[in-house]
Amino acid sequence: QSTLKSWVHCILLSPVQVANNMMDMDQDPRKRLCFADGRRKVDYVLVYHYRKRSSVRGSPSQHRLSIISNGSYPLGVEEKDQEGRKDEPAEVVVDVGPPDPADGEKIMIREEFEGNLKDAGLEIEHDKENKAHGHAFIRLHAPWQVLSREAEFLKIKVPTKKVRHSRDLFDYQRNLGNSRMSHCYFWPFCRYNIKSKDTFFDNATRSRIVSLYCFAHESSFQPEWYNMIRLLHDEWARYGAFYKYQPVDLIRKYFGEKIGLYFAWLGVYTQLLIPASVVGIIVFFYGWATVETNIPSQEMCDEDQNFTMCPLCDRACDYWHLSTACGTARASHLFDNPATVFFAIFMSLWAAMFLEHWKRRQISLNYSWDLTGMEEEEVHSHTYIEHPRPKYETILLQKRQRKKKNTKNKNETGHEKLTWRDRLPGYLINISSILFMFGVTCSAVFSVIIYRITISALMAMSSDPEVKSNVRVTVTATAVIINLVVILILDEIYGMVAAWLTELEIPKTETNFEERLILKAFLLKFMNAYAPIFYVAFFKGRFAGRPGDYVYVFNDYRMEECAPGGCLIELCIQLSIIMLGKQLIQNNVFEIGIPKLKKLCRTLKDKERAPKEIVEQPGRRQQWHLDYDLEPFDGLTPEYMEMIIQFGFVSLFVASFPLAPLFALLNNVIEIRLDAKKFVTELRRPDAIRAKDIGIWYNILSGLGKFSVIINAFVISFTSDFIPRLVYQYMYSETGTMHGFINHTLSYFNVSNFKPGTVPSISSLGKDITFCRYKDYREPPWSTEPYQFSKQYWSVLAARLGFVILFQNLVITMSMLVAWVIPDVPKNISEKLKKEKTLLVDVFLNEEKEKLQLIQSLFSRDLTQEQQEELKVSDQTSLPLQQTQPGQLPPTSSPAPRTRPRAASFSQFTRQMSMSPRSDITQHTAV
Amino acid sequence: QSTLKSWVHCILLSPVQVANNMMDMDQDPRKRLCFADGRRKVDYVLVYHYRKRSSVRGSPSQHRLSIISNGSYPLGVEEKDQEGRKDEPAEVVVDVGPPDPADGEKIMIREEFEGNLKDAGLEIEHDKENKAHGHAFIRLHAPWQVLSREAEFLKIKVPTKKVRHSRDLFDYQRNLGNSRMSHCYFWPFCRYNIKSKDTFFDNATRSRIVSLYCFAHESSFQPEWYNMIRLLHDEWARYGAFYKYQPVDLIRKYFGEKIGLYFAWLGVYTQLLIPASVVGIIVFFYGWATVETNIPSQEMCDEDQNFTMCPLCDRACDYWHLSTACGTARASHLFDNPATVFFAIFMSLWAAMFLEHWKRRQISLNYSWDLTGMEEEEVHSHTYIEHPRPKYETILLQKRQRKKKNTKNKNETGHEKLTWRDRLPGYLINISSILFMFGVTCSAVFSVIIYRITISALMAMSSDPEVKSNVRVTVTATAVIINLVVILILDEIYGMVAAWLTELEIPKTETNFEERLILKAFLLKFMNAYAPIFYVAFFKGRFAGRPGDYVYVFNDYRMEECAPGGCLIELCIQLSIIMLGKQLIQNNVFEIGIPKLKKLCRTLKDKERAPKEIVEQPGRRQQWHLDYDLEPFDGLTPEYMEMIIQFGFVSLFVASFPLAPLFALLNNVIEIRLDAKKFVTELRRPDAIRAKDIGIWYNILSGLGKFSVIINAFVISFTSDFIPRLVYQYMYSETGTMHGFINHTLSYFNVSNFKPGTVPSISSLGKDITFCRYKDYREPPWSTEPYQFSKQYWSVLAARLGFVILFQNLVITMSMLVAWVIPDVPKNISEKLKKEKTLLVDVFLNEEKEKLQLIQSLFSRDLTQEQQEELKVSDQTSLPLQQTQPGQLPPTSSPAPRTRPRAASFSQFTRQMSMSPRSDITQHTAV
Repeated sequence: QSTLKSWVHCILLSPVQVANNMMDMDQDPRKRLCFADGRRKVDYVLVYHYRKRSSVRGSPSQHRLSIISNGSYPLGVEEKDQEGRKDEPAEVVVDVGPPDPADGEKIMIREEFEGNLKDAGLEIEHDKENKAHGHAFIRLHAPWQVLSREAEFLKIKVPTKKVRHSRDLFDYQRNLGNSRMSHCYFWPFCRYNIKSKDTFFDNATRSRIVSLYCFAHESSFQPEWYNMIRLLHDEWARYGAFYKYQPVDLIRKYFGEKIGLYFAWLGVYTQLLIPASVVGIIVFFYGWATVETNIPSQEMCDEDQNFTMCPLCDRACDYWHLSTACGTARASHLFDNPATVFFAIFMSLWAAMFLEHWKRRQISLNYSWDLTGMEEEEVHSHTYIEHPRPKYETILLQKRQRKKKNTKNKNETGHEKLTWRDRLPGYLINISSILFMFGVTCSAVFSVIIYRITISALMAMSSDPEVKSNVRVTVTATAVIINLVVILILDEIYGMVAAWLTELEIPKTETNFEERLILKAFLLKFMNAYAPIFYVAFFKGRFAGRPGDYVYVFNDYRMEECAPGGCLIELCIQLSIIMLGKQLIQNNVFEIGIPKLKKLCRTLKDKERAPKEIVEQPGRRQQWHLDYDLEPFDGLTPEYMEMIIQFGFVSLFVASFPLAPLFALLNNVIEIRLDAKKFVTELRRPDAIRAKDIGIWYNILSGLGKFSVIINAFVISFTSDFIPRLVYQYMYSETGTMHGFINHTLSYFNVSNFKPGTVPSISSLGKDITFCRYKDYREPPWSTEPYQFSKQYWSVLAARLGFVILFQNLVITMSMLVAWVIPDVPKNISEKLKKEKTLLVDVFLNEEKEKLQLIQSLFSRDLTQEQQEELKVSDQTSLPLQQTQPGQLPPTSSPAPRTRPRAASFSQFTRQMSMSPRSDITQHTAV
Repeated sequence: QSTLKSWVHCILLSPVQVANNMMDMDQDPRKRLCFADGRRKVDYVLVYHYRKRSSVRGSPSQHRLSIISNGSYPLGVEEKDQEGRKDEPAEVVVDVGPPDPADGEKIMIREEFEGNLKDAGLEIEHDKENKAHGHAFIRLHAPWQVLSREAEFLKIKVPTKKVRHSRDLFDYQRNLGNSRMSHCYFWPFCRYNIKSKDTFFDNATRSRIVSLYCFAHESSFQPEWYNMIRLLHDEWARYGAFYKYQPVDLIRKYFGEKIGLYFAWLGVYTQLLIPASVVGIIVFFYGWATVETNIPSQEMCDEDQNFTMCPLCDRACDYWHLSTACGTARASHLFDNPATVFFAIFMSLWAAMFLEHWKRRQISLNYSWDLTGMEEEEVHSHTYIEHPRPKYETILLQKRQRKKKNTKNKNETGHEKLTWRDRLPGYLINISSILFMFGVTCSAVFSVIIYRITISALMAMSSDPEVKSNVRVTVTATAVIINLVVILILDEIYGMVAAWLTELEIPKTETNFEERLILKAFLLKFMNAYAPIFYVAFFKGRFAGRPGDYVYVFNDYRMEECAPGGCLIELCIQLSIIMLGKQLIQNNVFEIGIPKLKKLCRTLKDKERAPKEIVEQPGRRQQWHLDYDLEPFDGLTPEYMEMIIQFGFVSLFVASFPLAPLFALLNNVIEIRLDAKKFVTELRRPDAIRAKDIGIWYNILSGLGKFSVIINAFVISFTSDFIPRLVYQYMYSETGTMHGFINHTLSYFNVSNFKPGTVPSISSLGKDITFCRYKDYREPPWSTEPYQFSKQYWSVLAARLGFVILFQNLVITMSMLVAWVIPDVPKNISEKLKKEKTLLVDVFLNEEKEKLQLIQSLFSRDLTQEQQEELKVSDQTSLPLQQTQPGQLPPTSSPAPRTRPRAASFSQFTRQMSMSPRSDITQHTAV
């Protein structure tokens, strides 16, 4: 069977790239972006690889791509190729053998395809002089009749001027290019009475229309338009503009709705990070200001309270005084104070608010971008992304052929589908691979743990005192960096694995494919980025055992414990380094560095391979050549993914790191402009895909928001010392204050209970010590159940769990309230929609009146008196405004005679009158 | 200012009432339901109160009711009255004074109103012979042109025959009355080519159309239709049909979408109760089967294990042996066993499944009822329920007039609104009243507690041993009955209070009003029904204190404790009695008894008041008189409310009463037929309101479903003994079995620690007792902290709380998975929608082609050669199918000359051609 290869590329001309790179071009832009006649605009460019030595293995794919909008020739255009799929490999396989017979077939198919395009009304210009270069460029132009026909199909709404009074309903005027769209009413496009036909359709609209025929894009050559794009380049894709709102309407006009929505979403997110950052800074400073008056950290630093702690490792480590950990205790208070609880609640509500706010913004954008009232399917139904994917069609074809062979039954219907049986192997591989990846991530985390344990044990055993004193710092720093590197590498791998796994599932449509890919990639990348953080937050130090009964790995190394200041400070360090490191490295290396490197490589390779061809046309490269040299657009998934993972950092563990929103804000301010620059100058212009919303990303965001509530509840109650403090203060403290808290959290251990060989070998303190202390709630050695969990342990545990329940339900209820109080549809939008509807009714009535009068006047001239009377009887009903006197019954509508051709023609005509698809297909029995 | 009175009633003729009551009428149905001419159908009946002695206080309301669909006279019909509001008092105020001058005004207004109706095309028949009766009946008929005009507005979709092959697209045929709607495609109505004009529109459609003019209903007189309604009466509104599916399509056709949806919802709910009941019965029998092998209940019944329990009341009660409580222990096991936990999880998932299933059903119904693709506002925008309510308008008018007086500024705009300032008093009263009602409910519950405490104390003090032995049974039974009565009474009161409070809020539209009313009524009634159950589940026995330190109310009475078998059995009793009692009493008394009583009263009153008038026309009462005598329809709120409260019983505490779904199922099977009977025979035929969904009830259901998860988690972990048993088995039991559990749950009390005066005065056991036992986890008297909570207490508490977290998050995650896995749109529906869309595209293209050919042929006959050429230039664009050869540029579209009237008329014509409101209003600059 044929393996599918894409051998045609679509590129589109992008005047911004012109603006950026080619300011000194000698041609005027009009000429550069037009057909040879200098008048017809190039709407789309197809690129064929056209090398004599190269060929495609196997026959070209024979899959149907029925162009549903090409309704006038619904049965003619059948055997076509899938081109313009950006996710297919861009280069064809180069075969050094003799010319393949498939090459001829390829040409045939191409010619048929071009013929179909011509039949559909598109105009084509072949590119003769460039064939030697290896690529053949074919330029397409969509004339007015194609544009207008498709516009009617797509129900494209066009703006009308604001109606000032309800009286002069008919005082409309076209009002395109008016940026204050908010004052316009939109009506579906109708081709009649359009004044300026070559400027009527804007960029994205033309693009959508042409893409119906060949997944196309278009550029524009109007000076006005050209200026708008320069504006985008100067005002948006520039770091200096970081404080400005983004020109979202312009972005949408140039890049289409989907990309417009991405930037609008990014803008809303960044904007809402501002209050979160401010509150985070306040919370941080609250901790900073109260650190001096905080009793637990004072007690820890108090050298008079001489708590002798049990050694941190076997033999090599000595007993130590708690007061030496004063520094971390004070640092810990910065993040572990009552304000953090408030901040966690605040951030959960913030997440709910963000989602609601985005919903509103989305609806506003939908309104101003004419997407209101359109159903989800309608948005997609006319674009290629709803067609079956080539891979799917190939598999289906294979199945069908296999079946034919087996059954020899020729009466089979073609309505076969891939059942779960066909997909089962794919699903099985999927599940097992995902489980495997889980294993990989976990073992990566575990390896880092082993690294930390062994290195710190080895360093502790060293005789050099300087090494010993730096153990913790060295180990923590190197371990986090290793973690970071592992995360970054696995991130890239997982992205590829997710794509591969999704291919195996054979999703039917592009939308389907994208959704599944996103879900999988999110799952893997999320796990990857958060596994070490989850470990520190919830597992570290909980399996370390107790003095005299430590847990060992590999029989030799004690499980690691948290720093004396608590696990929260370690969580905070881990979180901040991973978050910052990931963002910095991803921004700099992956988003700037690697694309530049790739470009460099490509240009070098091109120069090596085809120095001759370039010499042939020095300095005379066409716009499409330049555009073709740019990076192809890979979809928005990586951009969204980066932001969603960041949203996770901001919401999930925000209780441990109140500065996360601030860092996210700083990153995003740069990120917006970085992405803008990338889209405007470094990528081939992407397909303008229509979209009403950000799709599955919204669900992921909302899921993260809900997940963050429970995670924060657990962080506050289990990782921080908030609950033990509360319990101490209100249950155990004799004075009702925090004095004595540190003593309360430390259990006693009788050093004679140490297992042989674990007692510190050299000890400066150990001479007269009988008891050492450790942080846990256990019975003292002198109780009836020594070293069992004490009553305090259970009461603190109960309080912790109770807090989780309380926090979770309270915050979820509050979030639901927030979501309920904020209406989804902004008030001004809903009012406008209502007004439009009222207007519509009035206009409809007036139109109907006029139309009927017109018809009557036309036919009264044309028909004989006898026929007119007949009409009065059979079609009186078509005059709704004609008054019937009460009590005067209209003549009974007897079945109209079928033999009178004129009357039938009239009725046919009136039927035709209702030309909209909405109101016609009732029945076809003659009146 | 004028207080609003409704002085016009709308009734509608309902052939079923005919079928039911008047089988022996002498007239044939055709004549009875028509105008005097016997041909024009009565679509609606208006009733005026027309008594010489009576008058309406104040002037009639002067509120605008702009009939938005009456678009051809948008400004003429302004000053009208609000009639047909069913929630207004049905009787006008009877004033015995002289004829009011307002009476004349009333007549004037009525005449103007009638004039407007005539202008709109409706036909009116006045009722002469009946004026003496006190009511004047005015009958309306909607002729074909009115119906067809409105049908186009409402975009009513009409069915077409199934398209067998994609080739013969135009082989449509009307296919009305075909019950297998699933095979039809629907298209929006277009008036042309309808064969049978007087039978084309079905019941609900005619109804909707006429109601635009006067909030109307209609009946039908076609024999076929008449039979359908008889069918409804015979096949649906009959207890014998309880096992059958409901004829939902028929119900919808007769009663409209809103009521159809209610019965469909009730059907889905009842149907899904079947599996829930089955599982509930299995769980119950599991408990029943395992009671013999259950170790804790065996231990409790074991008389050898001689646990001497502390007395249950001070002085009067003696010590007692635990084995005497054997009966309740065994009963308790029926409901308190591990299967209950499974059942609670099952029911939570069941609730999620039910909601998802209903969503799908709703979408299926929307599809087969032609509501797909219609937006929410569209459904309502043409019906009166979206108009401002009269109350709102009155208040607005008052405000405007007040403002006018104050400012004397005549340039004010009329676009005023009620701000929060105007509503503030209403809101304040609302909040305080709701808080007050909360207080009332709580004090009702508390009074019953006090009743229980005092009566049992008094009875225990009685010397009669028989009284003593029956204490618990007597007190529990009487208390629950008192609770039930209180709930039933408060339920009625709260319903009225909610309506009153909602009026105070001055909601703008009827929809608004309904939503707010429902929310408030639900809140109050929910609280009322569940407060005693919540008390038993979570509070009873928890504040009783411990021996030696009991909690007393009124210094004398000890707080009540749960029965020795645990609180769960009490919860179960409470739940079952309230649930069953409420359903039985509400069904029998409120839904059957009271309406019958009311009817009886009314007929008696009528007979007393007007014996003469009735004598005047013996046996000759018209259909409308009979219909007028029926109960008015009060809306669906009470029906839904009853079911939602029942859903609460089924879902909220299902962990304690697995038989609840069974009782609900039995009730609903009857309820459906009861409601059906009521709707068909006892109520005036209700307005046919369009609705896409069940509105706010869905949100309430989904909220209840979520709430039930946490409630069940708490019931299992805190009310039942499930967790203590688990903890005992895995933490404390030495053998790993349940042996010794009872001993473990009982704490020791040293009888010498009894406060003076609380020791049992007469004791048969008390001679040689030093310790008695009580159910709690406290330290024994010999510990260092006697009677403090023990370590066991805290560990059990921690386990309980941990279970709540686990259960809640697990079940919520599973419910979300269920909701995610089940697609909202059934697959066959989504495929059909896609097919329709494809069909639409093809049809549109063909239509356009034909239409343009027709126009060209028409005009080519009519226009001169010169003008034709002109047209070719300026309107070539209107011929999308005309081929332009590639490379051959179409002539530049220069601005068309403005001075040529013929061309302008043509373009105007072509503009008019696009008669649908969707595709026209682009601009009106001449070509």
